Amino acid sequence: MSTAYQQLLERFRELHRFAHLEAICHWDQSTMMPSGSNEARSEALAELALMQHRRLTAPEVGDWIAQADGEVLAPLEQANLREMKRHWQQAIALPDDLVEAQSLAGARCEHAWREQRRSNDWRGFSGNLREVVRLCREEADVRSAARGGGRYDSLLDLYEPGMTRARLDALFAEIGGWLPDLCQRVIERQSSDTCLSPVGPFPTDAQRKLGLEVMSALGFDFDRGRLDVSVHPFCGGAPEDVRITTRYSEDDFSGSLMGVIHETGHGCYEQNLPPGWLGQPAGEARSMGVHESQSLLFEMQLARHPAFLHWIAPRLLDAFGHEGQSQALAPDNLQKLFTRVQPGLIRVDADEVTYPFHIILRYEIECGLIEGELEVEDIPELWNEKMEAWLGLSTRGNYRDGCMQDIHWTDGSFGYFPTYTLGAIYAAQLFAALEREIEGLEQHIRDGNFVALTCWLREKIWLQGSLLETDELLRQATGDSPDPDWLRRHLERRYLAVD
Amino acid sequence: MSTAYQQLLERFRELHRFAHLEAICHWDQSTMMPSGSNEARSEALAELALMQHRRLTAPEVGDWIAQADGEVLAPLEQANLREMKRHWQQAIALPDDLVEAQSLAGARCEHAWREQRRSNDWRGFSGNLREVVRLCREEADVRSAARGGGRYDSLLDLYEPGMTRARLDALFAEIGGWLPDLCQRVIERQSSDTCLSPVGPFPTDAQRKLGLEVMSALGFDFDRGRLDVSVHPFCGGAPEDVRITTRYSEDDFSGSLMGVIHETGHGCYEQNLPPGWLGQPAGEARSMGVHESQSLLFEMQLARHPAFLHWIAPRLLDAFGHEGQSQALAPDNLQKLFTRVQPGLIRVDADEVTYPFHIILRYEIECGLIEGELEVEDIPELWNEKMEAWLGLSTRGNYRDGCMQDIHWTDGSFGYFPTYTLGAIYAAQLFAALEREIEGLEQHIRDGNFVALTCWLREKIWLQGSLLETDELLRQATGDSPDPDWLRRHLERRYLAVD
Repeated sequence: MSTAYQQLLERFRELHRFAHLEAICHWDQSTMMPSGSNEARSEALAELALMQHRRLTAPEVGDWIAQADGEVLAPLEQANLREMKRHWQQAIALPDDLVEAQSLAGARCEHAWREQRRSNDWRGFSGNLREVVRLCREEADVRSAARGGGRYDSLLDLYEPGMTRARLDALFAEIGGWLPDLCQRVIERQSSDTCLSPVGPFPTDAQRKLGLEVMSALGFDFDRGRLDVSVHPFCGGAPEDVRITTRYSEDDFSGSLMGVIHETGHGCYEQNLPPGWLGQPAGEARSMGVHESQSLLFEMQLARHPAFLHWIAPRLLDAFGHEGQSQALAPDNLQKLFTRVQPGLIRVDADEVTYPFHIILRYEIECGLIEGELEVEDIPELWNEKMEAWLGLSTRGNYRDGCMQDIHWTDGSFGYFPTYTLGAIYAAQLFAALEREIEGLEQHIRDGNFVALTCWLREKIWLQGSLLETDELLRQATGDSPDPDWLRRHLERRYLAVD
Repeated sequence: MSTAYQQLLERFRELHRFAHLEAICHWDQSTMMPSGSNEARSEALAELALMQHRRLTAPEVGDWIAQADGEVLAPLEQANLREMKRHWQQAIALPDDLVEAQSLAGARCEHAWREQRRSNDWRGFSGNLREVVRLCREEADVRSAARGGGRYDSLLDLYEPGMTRARLDALFAEIGGWLPDLCQRVIERQSSDTCLSPVGPFPTDAQRKLGLEVMSALGFDFDRGRLDVSVHPFCGGAPEDVRITTRYSEDDFSGSLMGVIHETGHGCYEQNLPPGWLGQPAGEARSMGVHESQSLLFEMQLARHPAFLHWIAPRLLDAFGHEGQSQALAPDNLQKLFTRVQPGLIRVDADEVTYPFHIILRYEIECGLIEGELEVEDIPELWNEKMEAWLGLSTRGNYRDGCMQDIHWTDGSFGYFPTYTLGAIYAAQLFAALEREIEGLEQHIRDGNFVALTCWLREKIWLQGSLLETDELLRQATGDSPDPDWLRRHLERRYLAVD
């Protein structure tokens, strides 16, 4: 006779297997699928999503959870039950008609946005977005009534469990206190730098080969994963079969190279989740913020580290070098190229110094939208005000490169943006701990030996899955709760040579 | 309020969507998946199969079928209900513990066979096969009790609905009456032929490019399909997203070229199933035999036709030609190459003249096994006897190239083999009708214009889905019930110049 907890475990194992198939078919949709198959694929995936929802919200699951609360459980089992409850509550909270209305409104808004962004059509877009926001407010009402806490908090919890608006307000206020001055000083300091641009073309084949070499060096396991091409790079698939993607431009190798390193961070996390717990909720990655911390640790902390650029320089020369290229591909010049700070309109193109501005701006606007303090019509004016104040750039009349640049809001993913900057904070904090704890880390990196680094991450983060909550995970790994001061120290050291 | 029929339709639409995801993940497993992911993928697919089985055999489905029997239905709806009943009865017939035992025994036997075949280990293999046969006999008992008819018939029905052992006995007896003599005469006639072998290497890229060109010419829609590489070529995916595969050898272009044409036949059938009926059982391909008839019509009837070889010869020269290659790639020589008849041990390498021998041999043995007239231990001796009698070849002691060469029996797919020869009969019959009905067909083919041919197949076969039963489908397309005499006439004309 199975206990309620064991029955829950079996149901979540079933859901894990379905998630595997879902992820592979999503990956296929972005990488392999011919375009004419899109409708059938989308319908098939929607059917699977509905079935997953049904299996998660079936009446017996609620009963099992109630019973399991009274069972004697070991710590791992407690963590599983905690995560099961969270998934179940999130799934059961919303009435079916709201889920369906959101799915329709989101699909309509996202679909139209692709063309509207191109034609800078704010009027058309805002009509659709208004409906998405209206439904997300309803979602936040229902969710916050079910779980307690604030309305925006209830959305945040979908991506970053444990995080609240109150804590984010404090974190972002702190960053807002020092970042403008720091940014100004970096720009002044870099104004006299001269920096050579490597000259293409950089053949796709050579870029791919280099990407694979770097992935291997970083420990990506090609026996349980692949690298392919998609329009929008991502890390997908399942922990047992990780699929990362990139895109190549023959004019510029750095976008794909840094992108591959970023996705490899996500991929290594997934591949090294505790093997014995796969299929259990405690065996999943901790949160979006922690996930992003692994990709940013690889892409920003590690791959822009002078020692890493020293290691990769000869490899770049080997891949792309021709007469007269050697200076542009020398470590010093690479360092300047990869740490160039330049305010810009586009979030995804931003450097690590100006990036938090893009996030805080979106955070402030989306909080206002969800709490009902702002309306969709207010967005362009506010966007422009904040861009002018923080980055000295105007987006007046330029919706395309302003408030219409991101996909996130089109399908109602409010509460997601903060995880980018949380990831940057966690990454800085983790890398500082790595530097303290691994003797000779810099030399290891310079030698292209990433074993000590990845073993440390594996032990402290990857193998922890979702056993601990995020704060405790960071505390056990670094001795400190999440603290943006680690990001400040990192930026000051790298960009202002403050040690 | 929905009728029972409408509820059935919605349930089968759901199953169609799951089948889409299942097929894409199976395709991925054979083409893209890294080997270390196999266990997780297999578990995920098994979970999906279980869920599909549960949804098909849920109590309400039986109720709906009983009710729908009393509803007033149009002809398409009647065809749907007939196919729904068939799928449901097949699924509900077996007790769960038999399904599970078969799945385990099949997986064990197939897995071990891969190594046992290599090492010619009949002793090891026969132990596993005995259990597979035992369970298949049990399956045939249960199925025939549920549906009436013979035991072997009940397995045949899984692949070729409407076909029976009595009819197959008659068909194969007829073929056995004329084929030995015909085969003998062909071999004598060809004994004085000289035939030049094109000399490789044939670069993979050039083979792939040619394959894609031929697929396009034959009407394959790349907006809803792909060509990739796998160890064992197949046509998979879904009607809305057809995935065909091939494998390349740089020593020989003909294997991949003819393989691609074969799979394109399967693929065009799937892509041209009635678009308005997709998701309905009557919108599915008719049977394995009809499916095989489309691939064999493309590969054997069309692609070995002198007019086709005349069309493809300059394309081969273009792809692979070099100094001194032009004679080997001339139409006359290609004709000799592609119609060479040579008795051999291996079914998948057999020419179209000797192929039926391989099938009849397997058919006779598997009938005996299922009906309990033969035991597994009797197979090698019988196999050898028949091979010696029909093809003059011994397999004594050579299990690897004898009764251990095929995968089909390892997982219990008894009843499948006959569909290959049924496909060859249907293909010959359909091509004869095409020749009668399309004026100037030969010239069209010689010009690489396959539009009239594919339009005819589309109208007569592809767009019919499973509306009609196989005999009626053939009768409406060709004016005749399935008749092996069409195969005889085709072989005599092509191989003995009898007109």
